Amino acid sequence: MEKLVLNGTLIDRGEASVDIEDRGYQFGDGIYEVVRVYGGRLFTSEMHLKRLYQSAEKLSLHIPYTMEQLTAQLEALVAANRLDTGIVYLQFTRGVAKRKHHFPETSETTFVAYTSEMERPLEKMRKGVKAVLAEDIRWLRCDIKSLNLLGNVLAKQKAVENGAYEAIQHRGETVTEGSSSNVFIVKDGVLLTHPATNLILNGITRQVVFGICGKEGIPFREEPFTVADLRAADEVLMTSTTSEIMPIVDIDGKPVADGTPGAITLKLQQAFDREIHALSAAVPGAPK
Amino acid sequence: MEKLVLNGTLIDRGEASVDIEDRGYQFGDGIYEVVRVYGGRLFTSEMHLKRLYQSAEKLSLHIPYTMEQLTAQLEALVAANRLDTGIVYLQFTRGVAKRKHHFPETSETTFVAYTSEMERPLEKMRKGVKAVLAEDIRWLRCDIKSLNLLGNVLAKQKAVENGAYEAIQHRGETVTEGSSSNVFIVKDGVLLTHPATNLILNGITRQVVFGICGKEGIPFREEPFTVADLRAADEVLMTSTTSEIMPIVDIDGKPVADGTPGAITLKLQQAFDREIHALSAAVPGAPK
Repeated sequence: MEKLVLNGTLIDRGEASVDIEDRGYQFGDGIYEVVRVYGGRLFTSEMHLKRLYQSAEKLSLHIPYTMEQLTAQLEALVAANRLDTGIVYLQFTRGVAKRKHHFPETSETTFVAYTSEMERPLEKMRKGVKAVLAEDIRWLRCDIKSLNLLGNVLAKQKAVENGAYEAIQHRGETVTEGSSSNVFIVKDGVLLTHPATNLILNGITRQVVFGICGKEGIPFREEPFTVADLRAADEVLMTSTTSEIMPIVDIDGKPVADGTPGAITLKLQQAFDREIHALSAAVPGAPK
Repeated sequence: MEKLVLNGTLIDRGEASVDIEDRGYQFGDGIYEVVRVYGGRLFTSEMHLKRLYQSAEKLSLHIPYTMEQLTAQLEALVAANRLDTGIVYLQFTRGVAKRKHHFPETSETTFVAYTSEMERPLEKMRKGVKAVLAEDIRWLRCDIKSLNLLGNVLAKQKAVENGAYEAIQHRGETVTEGSSSNVFIVKDGVLLTHPATNLILNGITRQVVFGICGKEGIPFREEPFTVADLRAADEVLMTSTTSEIMPIVDIDGKPVADGTPGAITLKLQQAFDREIHALSAAVPGAPK
């Protein structure tokens, strides 16, 4: 039987349920993370959990575990489910309280974590995917990885209805990010992406890409760019925990440059691959 | 034992729970209504349910009941709980599905409804309440009564932390609405409130107030007004299902006009009272 963590305890997946007055259910009053698992190991989990604690702080939400305790729970969950390649989804809400908008005086955080098998999208990463443009109608705290995801849901739905993989959101003329990814362009050899303000989520893969750029000598700038810049870009790519580094080769039915993944995208993918393999090669328990 | 409706069935409150992969819990992908109950009767429930179906349509959410079936369920719930004065909370989510942002191909709507006792806030309505100003940081589809309520939660929390009853939100200089209410001002004998665009929720009590204005000959306009207009207003009031017609007599520590409820607010309250009493006086089953 598949296992799941509910408030610190490993239980059978089928036994897990939440109260209808959980604030996550009535207000979306909670935060989450999705951590990649490769070869049974958590990938960049420290960065994810660091962001989780930041989201919690921004919403005055209490996480009753240290980062070490949380990591141990996630590792135990992955082991219990014998997960090789997939994800851990984890979520904290402000817990159960009689419904009132403001924070309850006393409520215990509800913590849920479960795993899903999920292959790497290798074929898509090789060929590239289609995207559509969508107005960014979300709130002004997109830096918080919260459960208020309807704007993202509607953008992704627009993509799916148009046979695309992702929706690229823009606020006015400025491109912000995908519905569940960050968006980059390459222009004249320089990688550009929206700065990590309140208008986007500071993606973990986005941050990994910056690290790769440093190592590989690829120039990059965190700088807003426009829809026109996007259409005229030499390369367009998106990054996310589940999609990794994904070339976008078609936007609203028009090819990006020659319609195939570009050289810098390929270079980033290869370096990202090496990071994944380094994880698998690491000896368990060995000093980092 | 207190009862609750879950997917059309009346069950014990304590037995009710939802799946952790309910889209309401992970995306806030759902809608809700709060209907007032006075003397055991639903108040303006037709208007609430009409708005519920509108919210559902805007999110392509399926409600598997007719308005008559839904009303009957709510009435049965109120009767089962012997509720006299209070509210019915009802919520529809897109149901349980493996987590993906876009709409699942098949998922059954989850429907929950429960009741709470809640007195009319008569003392507050007589004296008036304090409010604070708060930046409106919400998304651009506030016309949908969705479960994405974090912006509202944070605004209300600001009010509570400042000893106020409500937060008045403004987008730039324009006053939009309260954190869980609509906001009106009176200037030179005319009642003003933000028009029902995508920036506010078209409140039911707001609509009832327009009806009263028509009957009582009170001039009103649906027209945006500024924070400066708010500060210089002769009267400020808020409306909501639970707070009814509530005078705001203090904003950010400064009195509104002379700091007491104004004449037009009082007139609206009296007319609203008559509507409530007409409901209680109506013979059950008699033609309207």
